[in-house]
Amino acid sequence: MANVRGGDLSRLRQLNALAAIRALREAGPLTLTALAERTGLSRPSTKEVVDELTGLGWVEEVPPNPGTMGRPARRYRFRADCGHLVGVDIGGHNIRAALSDLDGEILAETRQPVRPDDPLEERLAAIERAVSGCLALSGRAASDLWLVAAGTTGVVSPEGRVQFSAAIPAWIGLDLAGELARMFPCEVLVENDSRLAALAEARRGAARGARDVVFLHVGRRMGTGLIIDGKVHRGFGAAAGEIVMLPEARWYDAPDHLNTCAVVPPGTPEEDAAGFTLAAARDGDPAALAAVGRYVDDLAVGTAAMVLLLDPQVVVLGGGFSRSADVLLGPLRERLERACLRTPEVRASALGDECVVMGAIDYAVDHLDRHLFTPDAGPSLPLPQPAGR
Amino acid sequence: MANVRGGDLSRLRQLNALAAIRALREAGPLTLTALAERTGLSRPSTKEVVDELTGLGWVEEVPPNPGTMGRPARRYRFRADCGHLVGVDIGGHNIRAALSDLDGEILAETRQPVRPDDPLEERLAAIERAVSGCLALSGRAASDLWLVAAGTTGVVSPEGRVQFSAAIPAWIGLDLAGELARMFPCEVLVENDSRLAALAEARRGAARGARDVVFLHVGRRMGTGLIIDGKVHRGFGAAAGEIVMLPEARWYDAPDHLNTCAVVPPGTPEEDAAGFTLAAARDGDPAALAAVGRYVDDLAVGTAAMVLLLDPQVVVLGGGFSRSADVLLGPLRERLERACLRTPEVRASALGDECVVMGAIDYAVDHLDRHLFTPDAGPSLPLPQPAGR
Repeated sequence: MANVRGGDLSRLRQLNALAAIRALREAGPLTLTALAERTGLSRPSTKEVVDELTGLGWVEEVPPNPGTMGRPARRYRFRADCGHLVGVDIGGHNIRAALSDLDGEILAETRQPVRPDDPLEERLAAIERAVSGCLALSGRAASDLWLVAAGTTGVVSPEGRVQFSAAIPAWIGLDLAGELARMFPCEVLVENDSRLAALAEARRGAARGARDVVFLHVGRRMGTGLIIDGKVHRGFGAAAGEIVMLPEARWYDAPDHLNTCAVVPPGTPEEDAAGFTLAAARDGDPAALAAVGRYVDDLAVGTAAMVLLLDPQVVVLGGGFSRSADVLLGPLRERLERACLRTPEVRASALGDECVVMGAIDYAVDHLDRHLFTPDAGPSLPLPQPAGR
Repeated sequence: MANVRGGDLSRLRQLNALAAIRALREAGPLTLTALAERTGLSRPSTKEVVDELTGLGWVEEVPPNPGTMGRPARRYRFRADCGHLVGVDIGGHNIRAALSDLDGEILAETRQPVRPDDPLEERLAAIERAVSGCLALSGRAASDLWLVAAGTTGVVSPEGRVQFSAAIPAWIGLDLAGELARMFPCEVLVENDSRLAALAEARRGAARGARDVVFLHVGRRMGTGLIIDGKVHRGFGAAAGEIVMLPEARWYDAPDHLNTCAVVPPGTPEEDAAGFTLAAARDGDPAALAAVGRYVDDLAVGTAAMVLLLDPQVVVLGGGFSRSADVLLGPLRERLERACLRTPEVRASALGDECVVMGAIDYAVDHLDRHLFTPDAGPSLPLPQPAGR
């Protein structure tokens, strides 16, 4: 029998098993008595369920503390290592991958540099290498993977096809979900990178605990990801977050203010220009400060539109320019205070370059909770055998 | 024993009772066998729960059809009339009230005209009269009410205090939730009117079945209500939907295009001016069509910001000007198609002047489902006795 939803368990026993797994995943190790209380099951039913799940490799007994006197009550925990998840961040210049257990605990990370103009095959090969690296680092095989979640720059269709990407032109039209499904022997999820970054900041980063979060990707390209009521907001056609496309929001050309400042040395490649302006502004250069002011004026228009519309608890400033958050946060806050009815907290990204790959892991964990460990949540995953039995 | 969550029922019996009530509310009349299947309870437990709920007045047997031969299996239903809900729409010119059963089935409606500059006391008295009228029409008493949900123009704090209202100046600063709580012997909810209108259109109106909906209140004043993932989006400080406050969204002054058109007869009061322009545009008057074009240009900017950000399935055009939806919908669609990545359906309000009061009823039903008929959803309502026992 391969999975908890599978054939031999009766409907009621399945529901009880799912309730027990959910309780153990939420609360950590529990005694049978505590587990019975949380699930509403009788103690004999709880014992039966735990024995069954232990036999299947989903649950294990926690060893008692060495110093414990007498006979303490046995405690049981969910075996988060009975399966593994992979998160991938597909950017213009880097592919990052991370491997975690089923609780999202990171066990290995890798990075593969790529170039925006690399051919499609090379970029796909780099994804495969990044994930293989994670498997090797953690001593796991591809067959241990339950889910691969990938975040990519660009607009992604609900089916995981790249509809548009300014950063990776070769990516446009690619059936990314299909390519990844050919690569890995497990379910694959594809999502826009800014949305995953937003999720990571809401779960473990600068907006930890907040239910409504606007993540601003500020860099040479601008993007945004929304967390609404604790969940990634995709929209009906998975096209949410594209306010950069509205000229009146003044985002698209905003980075030009930084690129064209007089402090940028002649001949600087465009991708490095803004860094000079932001650095000079930190040192108090008046021309650079004026350029930053104009940049934040524009950034604040689209941001105020989002804040007025959604009233988030936290706005997180992420992306390449967020390394200069010290220069940007104050002016942005000040403009939002003038423009908005209620000003949210404005914070710098806590996860930096890791935010997309962490978000991909968090997204995979959420997917697991929603589609596997919840009764009647729709089609069940094709689950591999719990590992290490 | 006054309520299902109350003292005497054990934890497990409470959970079973809630599961049975939920199944009957969702599926309508069920046989014991069908109910057992939906709840996952054994048939004897189901019988026990149904007997108990019948005794408490929450559930009743459905009379068999007169023509039925033999002995058909008994069917049971939730008694939606064991309590009642009131919805109130507090506008500048009208107070509307509706009374429904616990399923949101409307049993009575009233309207009380008021004036925007009426003193506070007069407006509060009109609310009380409107609700009393509903009670009288339906033969119910205030003690039969479980919930009163009120929608008001203006920005409302999470605690139900009016923070700002352009339409009813006397309303600003009012503890509306407190005033209503003094008026009615039951729990009171207060919400922004555009949000409730959005909910009604999503539940029973133009956007029925859609999970992500933007409701545009277009009229002399502009407002918006968002339904995200099937729920009213309030935002962290209950200030969501206020994009009209962003000058770049071009909403605030947009109605001026209609008010100042040459077709408006001199001396027309401002509140009637737009109607002349919209009527003339319907008749093909070039000046009026040009004014409508400029109006929709502005309307489309704020709307495109919302569509690009949220990617809703449906945009509903409501509010006073939506009576001229035939004149506005085409031009609005055309501009959104040019500005947006994915154009949602754009539809006229199906509920018209009733949308806020219907939304208030739907909001009350949702609240009931979330806070009363769901285990562990937080504090339970102070429930009155089920009526009519």
